[in-house]
Amino acid sequence: MSTKSFRLALDVGGTNLAAAVVDQEYHILSRESIPAGAGRSIDEITSDMAKVSRMAVQKAGLTLEDMSFWGIGMPSCVNSKTNLLVHANCFGWKNVPIYDYLKKNMPLPVRVENDANAAAYGELIAGAARGYKNALMVTLGTGVGGGIIIDGKIYAGADNLGGQIGHTKLVYDGELCTCGQKGCLEAYCSATALIKFAKRAGLYNSGSKEDAQTVFRFAKEGNPLAMKLIDDYVSYLAAGLSSLIAIFRPEIIIIGGGVSAAGEQLFVPLRQKLENCTFGAAQSGLPPVVCAELGNDAGLIGAAYLDMQNQ
Amino acid sequence: MSTKSFRLALDVGGTNLAAAVVDQEYHILSRESIPAGAGRSIDEITSDMAKVSRMAVQKAGLTLEDMSFWGIGMPSCVNSKTNLLVHANCFGWKNVPIYDYLKKNMPLPVRVENDANAAAYGELIAGAARGYKNALMVTLGTGVGGGIIIDGKIYAGADNLGGQIGHTKLVYDGELCTCGQKGCLEAYCSATALIKFAKRAGLYNSGSKEDAQTVFRFAKEGNPLAMKLIDDYVSYLAAGLSSLIAIFRPEIIIIGGGVSAAGEQLFVPLRQKLENCTFGAAQSGLPPVVCAELGNDAGLIGAAYLDMQNQ
Repeated sequence: MSTKSFRLALDVGGTNLAAAVVDQEYHILSRESIPAGAGRSIDEITSDMAKVSRMAVQKAGLTLEDMSFWGIGMPSCVNSKTNLLVHANCFGWKNVPIYDYLKKNMPLPVRVENDANAAAYGELIAGAARGYKNALMVTLGTGVGGGIIIDGKIYAGADNLGGQIGHTKLVYDGELCTCGQKGCLEAYCSATALIKFAKRAGLYNSGSKEDAQTVFRFAKEGNPLAMKLIDDYVSYLAAGLSSLIAIFRPEIIIIGGGVSAAGEQLFVPLRQKLENCTFGAAQSGLPPVVCAELGNDAGLIGAAYLDMQNQ
Repeated sequence: MSTKSFRLALDVGGTNLAAAVVDQEYHILSRESIPAGAGRSIDEITSDMAKVSRMAVQKAGLTLEDMSFWGIGMPSCVNSKTNLLVHANCFGWKNVPIYDYLKKNMPLPVRVENDANAAAYGELIAGAARGYKNALMVTLGTGVGGGIIIDGKIYAGADNLGGQIGHTKLVYDGELCTCGQKGCLEAYCSATALIKFAKRAGLYNSGSKEDAQTVFRFAKEGNPLAMKLIDDYVSYLAAGLSSLIAIFRPEIIIIGGGVSAAGEQLFVPLRQKLENCTFGAAQSGLPPVVCAELGNDAGLIGAAYLDMQNQ
């Protein structure tokens, strides 16, 4: 007897296709992962997206009949006005009728969403933002990703191509960003940016690992150069978040990604700087700023429940 | 016989209280205005808000029975979670239970909204954004006001205190803003800011009026200093709008306020710079950027129809 009480999630990246079965309590029951095989045809890759998802179902001891939905997070966006996946840089795809491909291989209702948005939704329903309706999630990793939740739903602009927090401008005419523009939040607040500034300042010595955590560790040990780098980094992040608070006045801000592992070394000065640099903070208060709880599972759990967006 | 087919609007400012009767075709049938009398008690001012509104009804040859709604635009916000008017700097008010005062003097359903939001809504229903559902309005005047329309409704953040476009950060650690923060869009893109930069550069000569239009006129006449000031001004504005496009992907952007009177001298270079500085512009296109149509009436017309926000 089929139950339809489980959901199938897929996290698509340039390296791996990671699938999971998620239950009604937002628990992940099984996982499967296969190489993404970037460079192959759309047919081959989308066929593998279905294949690894079926593998996860099998591993959970269930069948497709037990699944109510297939949710997919990808580093891309589907234009809500054309239903085309506008670009997936990891595969070199552009304007792909993704749903036509996906439906060929899977008899389930399906929805594709930007992976940062799926992660924000996961934190909302099962993680750090449980119980809130209006949240902002910012992921500080290789880039700066963002997810905006308004009234319990993902908000990504009029055509679903917006919500690009990482590419709002923080420093007019500033550092070159990966997107080709100058001064984006991502060019100052990603882990990559912190590493860039640390290298430029000559922080790393021959034995030290050139990553963001090393900068935080050196700062904790009292290295003045590292302390200055972290202070600047947190100031940039606070300024960027202050703009988003002025617009969205979220009920909670969740910080995820590699940099968030610095914990209170990041959060204590961040909250303090936000008090000082945010429009209306003194009169109207500030939302709590907390660490993401679900790590990489946020995207899978959020994707599994994307159909709730339509209600 | 009462018709209930007209609406009463009030535009509250620090100097005047301006009322109007608006019909079903968004036409203004009558206007009345009295001094705001800032400095008096909340009781006195709110009583005058009702008085001038009744005067407008009388002037139109109608009665309150013919009115279905009383909409008010103010340079302030009502916190949607507490129903308090959080601050009205023009009167020195803070956390006022505004609806209690208003209902004492007027037997009509009433709603108070931020004036920039009311103006954006007016342009949406009857002006430059007619037929659109997702629009962004930016008013370049003494300050920089903004109105965000999502899905046909005013969006002002989770508690209605957001949507503060003018106080998003454009230049990290930049010019001091009237709000006390540094680098706000308003500190670079208001008419006041353009005048400030023109003065600083020594543009104005003894005979010239020290306003924004003079800078545009000098630039048109080929004055290299004025041309540089306008080029910088438009670059700042384009950068600020590019961040909002990255987030909202609006279907149309409306520019209002005194500076918008510069017309194509502003809009032609603005559109060009937006093409070059906006994330995803080449792949996903840009919204049209047009001049507001309703001038100061936008706020009145928008206010008159604020009850449509509840549907």
